[in-house]
Amino acid sequence: MNTSSGVPAVKALVFDVFGTVVDWRISLIDDFTAWSKTRGIQGDWTGLVDAWRGAYVPSMDEVRKHPERGYLALDTLHRQSLEKLVTQFAISGLTEDDLSYMTLGWHRLHPWSDSVSGLTRLKTKFTIGTLSNGNVALLNNMAKHAGLPWDLILSAELFEHYKPDREVYLGAARLLGLQPEQVMMVAAHNNDLKAAQDLGLKTGFVARPTEYGPLQKRDFKADGDWDVVATDFNDLAARLGC
Amino acid sequence: MNTSSGVPAVKALVFDVFGTVVDWRISLIDDFTAWSKTRGIQGDWTGLVDAWRGAYVPSMDEVRKHPERGYLALDTLHRQSLEKLVTQFAISGLTEDDLSYMTLGWHRLHPWSDSVSGLTRLKTKFTIGTLSNGNVALLNNMAKHAGLPWDLILSAELFEHYKPDREVYLGAARLLGLQPEQVMMVAAHNNDLKAAQDLGLKTGFVARPTEYGPLQKRDFKADGDWDVVATDFNDLAARLGC
Repeated sequence: MNTSSGVPAVKALVFDVFGTVVDWRISLIDDFTAWSKTRGIQGDWTGLVDAWRGAYVPSMDEVRKHPERGYLALDTLHRQSLEKLVTQFAISGLTEDDLSYMTLGWHRLHPWSDSVSGLTRLKTKFTIGTLSNGNVALLNNMAKHAGLPWDLILSAELFEHYKPDREVYLGAARLLGLQPEQVMMVAAHNNDLKAAQDLGLKTGFVARPTEYGPLQKRDFKADGDWDVVATDFNDLAARLGC
Repeated sequence: MNTSSGVPAVKALVFDVFGTVVDWRISLIDDFTAWSKTRGIQGDWTGLVDAWRGAYVPSMDEVRKHPERGYLALDTLHRQSLEKLVTQFAISGLTEDDLSYMTLGWHRLHPWSDSVSGLTRLKTKFTIGTLSNGNVALLNNMAKHAGLPWDLILSAELFEHYKPDREVYLGAARLLGLQPEQVMMVAAHNNDLKAAQDLGLKTGFVARPTEYGPLQKRDFKADGDWDVVATDFNDLAARLGC
């Protein structure tokens, strides 16, 4: 798509959230560092947070491989992974309330500095919604906490699948009452956009090169023929005529 | 519940929409009256709108009685009912575009005068969402059109049921990550609140005595032991400490 001609067909933008809208890594590291001091608990919080995110894709794969176990929402997967990791990182003295507090850390993530202003601009012209593997409660609580001005919360949970399963992208378009090409998936992850593009959705890439800190290995730049490539959400708004 | 003690447990308010938040009757009558003049089409628009709403509950009952046919979203039911009614009301000259325009009239409804200001106040303290038999696209389009500041769109469509089926109320609490008693159903209809209360949700009644115009036969006042009874959404906000 030639962005100079605008994107007349697009009615709704749906956003990946972890990494694209919010900085999960620094948010969680800062949160746990400050909180653990008040609780008198020692831990390698950076290591734990990186390992926790490392467990994310494998934990969703388990859900995909075992449909007979039923769908597990991301809050549940986060909690299951955390229980293993606190043992692995030899973090002791955690109560049930502590484990709950840490799991709900994913509800308290901070947006990138351009997220709220860019979304606010985009909302004037488009429906803006989440399309995240986070469950609805997580995404709603995050939005309330971070001031993210979504029109609606769409989640993989609604379809009992996880991205990049096709059910999530096509389900979002169906609920919006739109054709896939009227919906643009916005993400900082090329693989998310590839899955969306293969199903007919439009695509917008926004680089978040510090998402994984020193562990970042990919997604420094657009690796596909995406409809729009922007430096941040305000640049995306400008490119989409907002 | 003694409202003077506040409602500390409630985290989210979910709202019936047709009649409670928006004035479907006058909105549609005015819309079709103005539009039909530009199209040169004659019709008893008041009669048609009242009959259309009259077909609402029976059309959902058909979905409930025939699960083997699959779930039909409200946009589809509205269209099916409309096709019968234009014949019954002898309205001729309607094109496919006209039928689509009329069906989407339900996406263009106007809020009661207190709805936006009251919701804006309530949003500062609570999660506010729809919990309507309208499908997600309808509710999202209406929100964009009318400026309704929802945190999220919850719809009977997500559960493939229609209110007052229990799956809708309990499904909303589940997606919000809340216990039923942490969710308040707000409606202008006593039967909606009765179903919610029976499942453990809190209840808020707001009278909309002109919803059905001269055809209004019930819901002039609270007929149950609801947790909060308010005259409008600003009164509801005040009673809930916003």
